[in-house]
Amino acid sequence: MADLSQITLDSASSTPLYKQLADSIRSLVSVGSLRTGERLPATRELAGQLGLNRTTVSAAYEMLEQSGFLQGHVGRGSFIAAAPEMHSFDWETVLPPLEHTPAPTAAVSINFASSRPAADSFPLEQFRQISQQVIDSPEAAEILQLGSSHGYAPLRHYLLEQSRNSGVARDTDDLIITNGCQQALDLIARVFFDSATASQSLLVEDPVYHGLLRVFLRAGANIIGIPVDEAGLDLNAVEDAIGRLHPRMLVVTPSFQNPTGATLSLDRRKRLIEIAQRAGLILVENDIYSELRYTGKPLPTLKQLDTSGNVILLRSYSKVSFPGLRVGWIVAPRPVIARLAGAKQISDLHSDQLSQAVLLRFAESGELARHLTRSRDTGAERLHAAMSACSLHLPTGSTWTRPEGGMSLWVELPAPLLAENVLARCEQRGVSYLAGPLFSSRDAHRRGLRLSFGGLAPQQITRGIQIMGESAASELAAIRAEARLEPVAAVV
Amino acid sequence: MADLSQITLDSASSTPLYKQLADSIRSLVSVGSLRTGERLPATRELAGQLGLNRTTVSAAYEMLEQSGFLQGHVGRGSFIAAAPEMHSFDWETVLPPLEHTPAPTAAVSINFASSRPAADSFPLEQFRQISQQVIDSPEAAEILQLGSSHGYAPLRHYLLEQSRNSGVARDTDDLIITNGCQQALDLIARVFFDSATASQSLLVEDPVYHGLLRVFLRAGANIIGIPVDEAGLDLNAVEDAIGRLHPRMLVVTPSFQNPTGATLSLDRRKRLIEIAQRAGLILVENDIYSELRYTGKPLPTLKQLDTSGNVILLRSYSKVSFPGLRVGWIVAPRPVIARLAGAKQISDLHSDQLSQAVLLRFAESGELARHLTRSRDTGAERLHAAMSACSLHLPTGSTWTRPEGGMSLWVELPAPLLAENVLARCEQRGVSYLAGPLFSSRDAHRRGLRLSFGGLAPQQITRGIQIMGESAASELAAIRAEARLEPVAAVV
Repeated sequence: MADLSQITLDSASSTPLYKQLADSIRSLVSVGSLRTGERLPATRELAGQLGLNRTTVSAAYEMLEQSGFLQGHVGRGSFIAAAPEMHSFDWETVLPPLEHTPAPTAAVSINFASSRPAADSFPLEQFRQISQQVIDSPEAAEILQLGSSHGYAPLRHYLLEQSRNSGVARDTDDLIITNGCQQALDLIARVFFDSATASQSLLVEDPVYHGLLRVFLRAGANIIGIPVDEAGLDLNAVEDAIGRLHPRMLVVTPSFQNPTGATLSLDRRKRLIEIAQRAGLILVENDIYSELRYTGKPLPTLKQLDTSGNVILLRSYSKVSFPGLRVGWIVAPRPVIARLAGAKQISDLHSDQLSQAVLLRFAESGELARHLTRSRDTGAERLHAAMSACSLHLPTGSTWTRPEGGMSLWVELPAPLLAENVLARCEQRGVSYLAGPLFSSRDAHRRGLRLSFGGLAPQQITRGIQIMGESAASELAAIRAEARLEPVAAVV
Repeated sequence: MADLSQITLDSASSTPLYKQLADSIRSLVSVGSLRTGERLPATRELAGQLGLNRTTVSAAYEMLEQSGFLQGHVGRGSFIAAAPEMHSFDWETVLPPLEHTPAPTAAVSINFASSRPAADSFPLEQFRQISQQVIDSPEAAEILQLGSSHGYAPLRHYLLEQSRNSGVARDTDDLIITNGCQQALDLIARVFFDSATASQSLLVEDPVYHGLLRVFLRAGANIIGIPVDEAGLDLNAVEDAIGRLHPRMLVVTPSFQNPTGATLSLDRRKRLIEIAQRAGLILVENDIYSELRYTGKPLPTLKQLDTSGNVILLRSYSKVSFPGLRVGWIVAPRPVIARLAGAKQISDLHSDQLSQAVLLRFAESGELARHLTRSRDTGAERLHAAMSACSLHLPTGSTWTRPEGGMSLWVELPAPLLAENVLARCEQRGVSYLAGPLFSSRDAHRRGLRLSFGGLAPQQITRGIQIMGESAASELAAIRAEARLEPVAAVV
């Protein structure tokens, strides 16, 4: 018979004693002190040995029996059950291949890879006050109850009114709350692509945010990249693609595009609207950065310029306030919002209401506007630091964009440098960024890279770009050294 | 020239004056007081008339010009632009058909249609204290920053440890946080069905939660309903379906199934595990109600009984605490969680972190356990009220399930009554429920209906079921009256 008298339990622990006992017996088996077929002491006996109530021991045995660990035989006692034969299920045969998502190595101290604001500039005190007001308010019970797929009604009404007042929404438009802009893109892909029988074409900027690419690739869209220059999308390429492919939709980030930081000029905005209307092309306008303008004049959104109602506008609080709270929204004609709400209900019923209520009060109280003013000041400094450091430290022949806002800029290294190889050297020195191919549906942009400066202090930005420059120089030296070692071509 | 001197602006408003002015001009056009082609006063002139700064007027004109409302001609002034030709975009040609989602009419006062807890039993004071602690904690800044697709790390670790301690998770398992159980189902459908080239079979309970049906229908699964009796799934039907169809997966809610309230007996649980292991069938265990047991003995989960690692377990805080906070989780072998995290990142990056932090503290502090104890007491009362009222008020020949927990029971009306027709009468008297066909992939269960009692007080439940009985009686009388009016069959 098994000896369990050495087991010690902690009566002060929050784990119930019967569970502690069951766990101890399991461990004795796993370390080999108890073997298959061994009989356990009777409950009364073990209770006496360990100074426990007998029901505690019974409960432990019952738990172990239910999970197949013990076998009880009436009148004969409880025995350690034979380990069930483990035909371990072979998941790899039924699962899709694992997608590689680049993750910076643990030792990264200057991270240009993540497009996000700096946590040290969060207005924590204001957030605390606002949250306190929300949880103390009489609406708390409503916030905690099951909500609507369209969003928390007070926030939805506030955003709809704001959108109407600024000419973004017209009377025929409606609004749905999403978990940030990522879910907005996903819902759009579900409504417009998943249900299509044939694989339809989608125009996107090239390079473009990798999370956008992945959403539409997964939905089976035929993705066509349209080159982006400093004034945004190349509209001749758009017209050409329309003529050849009759695409269903164009997704565009007119202000401070991710990854290039480029802004579509007013002339191009007007022309794009015309082109889209003529072609019956749906325009999805991803407008999550436009409030982060550091220099230059604000431009109207495509949605404001639109006259035929074919623009779907995405906005979000995540980039301009707290990315950990997932609240974005879509403004579009009513029939579109009705379908998006159906897709939202299937996806996750509705967005979390506590954050919706907190962000509503954050916006209504004017705290969001004050925070934006501060964010523009710090953003301008960071952008300036990044551009100065690029001039000083990047190797000769590098080019980079000169955004007027946002969180990212785009660098092209001179040949024969590849962004991925320079990255490997950077990461050894604690600096990370995302290499160009991630922003392409065709693995292009091998010399390109995105520098997201939004979350870093100016001195980190300067130091990080200096290390990038030094890493690029080492890589170049290594390439040249290797070239010298190559045998010369045979003369024939 | 247009006369704008009557415009009045509110200098105390938070809307900037230039925007107020632009809005006023827009309204004058929309009411017909200003017409296409009319010239507006020069900025200096209008500024004088209205007592405004000239830059305010310029800003308003510029805004209107940018949105195409005004046309400026250098040296000649600004004119109301001709309304652009509205080729209104035809959305209905590009959108999928609108799905009908049943929504109770506005006048419903006793709503059996929604499976949710009662708002008046929310522990609001405890929620407020807990939330206050979270927002005051040093972790607040971390909560507000961009998070992980796997979930907020402290909550994830807490849940993983809990799952390990209770034998639900083994060492080869991992855990991901989702926006409630709805998103968990959606992510599973994305990983296991969307990527499959052929349409694979999925076994589900019949009747089954409509939100589950919609997720997998959308993903293109071939859905096979398996009948449910008081002891849960009919396992002979499962074995038969396996033999005929080689299904990929079975989704099952072993405890207090939605809509029937049925619980899979321990014997059937063990046999189901064996069947699934032998057939290489993936089991998805939806375990969101098991903590709401009012009578009878708790049973081990399939995940605890499983020995080959083919069970994916879903749990959620939504049903047992606050449905407005969307936090659920999945426990499954590591390769599965890795794919689910990839799907989650595409869907919405990550779940909202404020609610994750609040619910973590709610659980850790013991408040969740205390709330659960109270919920079981109120739930037992409500279930009892529902079953008594069914005995008293439903028409002779009705049958209904007798759940030991959860939030819903299932009623079958006697022929020739149809649940939908009785519902129409109920709604006229302020009572709503969901009719059976919604819980079927084949529009079956026309005499069935789900009564969700979780959110209603006992006296509402009694009154509601009384009204249902009376409505059924009226419907029956109407059917009989109509039958008497039918001409008798011709004799030939």
